Amino acid sequence: MVKQDRAIRTRQTILTAAAKVFEERGYQAATISEILLTAGVTKGALYFHFPSKEDLAEGVIHEQDHDLPIPLRACKVQQLVDTVVLHAYRLRTDPLVRAGVRLALDQQTQGLDRSGPFLRWSDVGIALLEQAQAQGELMPHIVPAETADVLVGAFAGVQAMSQAMSNYQDLPHRVTALLRHVLPSVVVPSVLAAVDITEGRGAFVHAELDSLRTPQHPAPVS
Amino acid sequence: MVKQDRAIRTRQTILTAAAKVFEERGYQAATISEILLTAGVTKGALYFHFPSKEDLAEGVIHEQDHDLPIPLRACKVQQLVDTVVLHAYRLRTDPLVRAGVRLALDQQTQGLDRSGPFLRWSDVGIALLEQAQAQGELMPHIVPAETADVLVGAFAGVQAMSQAMSNYQDLPHRVTALLRHVLPSVVVPSVLAAVDITEGRGAFVHAELDSLRTPQHPAPVS
Repeated sequence: MVKQDRAIRTRQTILTAAAKVFEERGYQAATISEILLTAGVTKGALYFHFPSKEDLAEGVIHEQDHDLPIPLRACKVQQLVDTVVLHAYRLRTDPLVRAGVRLALDQQTQGLDRSGPFLRWSDVGIALLEQAQAQGELMPHIVPAETADVLVGAFAGVQAMSQAMSNYQDLPHRVTALLRHVLPSVVVPSVLAAVDITEGRGAFVHAELDSLRTPQHPAPVS
Repeated sequence: MVKQDRAIRTRQTILTAAAKVFEERGYQAATISEILLTAGVTKGALYFHFPSKEDLAEGVIHEQDHDLPIPLRACKVQQLVDTVVLHAYRLRTDPLVRAGVRLALDQQTQGLDRSGPFLRWSDVGIALLEQAQAQGELMPHIVPAETADVLVGAFAGVQAMSQAMSNYQDLPHRVTALLRHVLPSVVVPSVLAAVDITEGRGAFVHAELDSLRTPQHPAPVS
């Protein structure tokens, strides 16, 4: 158990170092030696967890979309909104999440399959939209797979624009604007009227999740 | 005049070579020597047009958004749609446009101001939306600057997702889906019913522009 904990911590140390080096150098120019030096772990430990630079990048990319513990909501559109705004919040506050999103969007990383995070986020969206549809929350013509792809693609670009324009300062505003432009075509008006898409929602969901993690039972790190 | 034509051609040769090298190496790893070798021009010519790697990247980025000769439309929402779908068409077919979009979206290019194309596209959108608003084509609550930013940001992400998922094969489909999700919140229904946002629209606008360029009077290259 202790051994496993240590392995998880080492893995996180390596991913954080890799995120930092990818951010500074770009994927193409980054080297494993530099990541090794930044992480301060043994070569054996690094290769045990990540046999190649590609595996390191995929590890960093995967950090953005796993283990997202959104609280259940009776309204599935609200749960979808909360998933989007929490991701935006983490993007502003967690360097590892940020590095993962940047790698996934870097269209100059030859040899790296960047479809993974798009597909995984799309699956998250489809599952929530299908539940929303079953509850009668969506307009009758909506195809969950198509709407999920529009949201995932649009979000990716809006965060990139926010990063380029304000280094993420205006991200909550831009995400709210995106949702106000897309949701009226997707959600029935009576549901839409009850959904919170205000700019403070991301911080609210994050605080809610923090309060659910009692100090006695910390959430697993992996 | 001939001298000026030659300078324009040299500039295009250099930009095409720079686009190729940035695509292959990424911005960080690309070197001016390699661009020089690929372009096959003299060092003097290259430095005359572009004194630094940053200038080269900005030149490539700027290629995507200048001199866009969209035919005037009575319906300004249609003109906005035509601008979007023509850009998507050029993105699929013109390597220089593609390289510019990728550089602008590459969040790992330190020292390169990537806000330029977002701002310029945003300005194009604002101008068209303000005209549409003056003609009564938009919903009363629409703020052109906000809607333009949503469209520009969302488009940037949708094209990145299309590139990652299908190497741009599904781009016309994804752009149409985006417009179908956003326009109903923006445009009054009677105008929306008359706007063509079908998947073939980009190719149609491109063919229309080609037919306007008679062989006797080719469009200026610059």
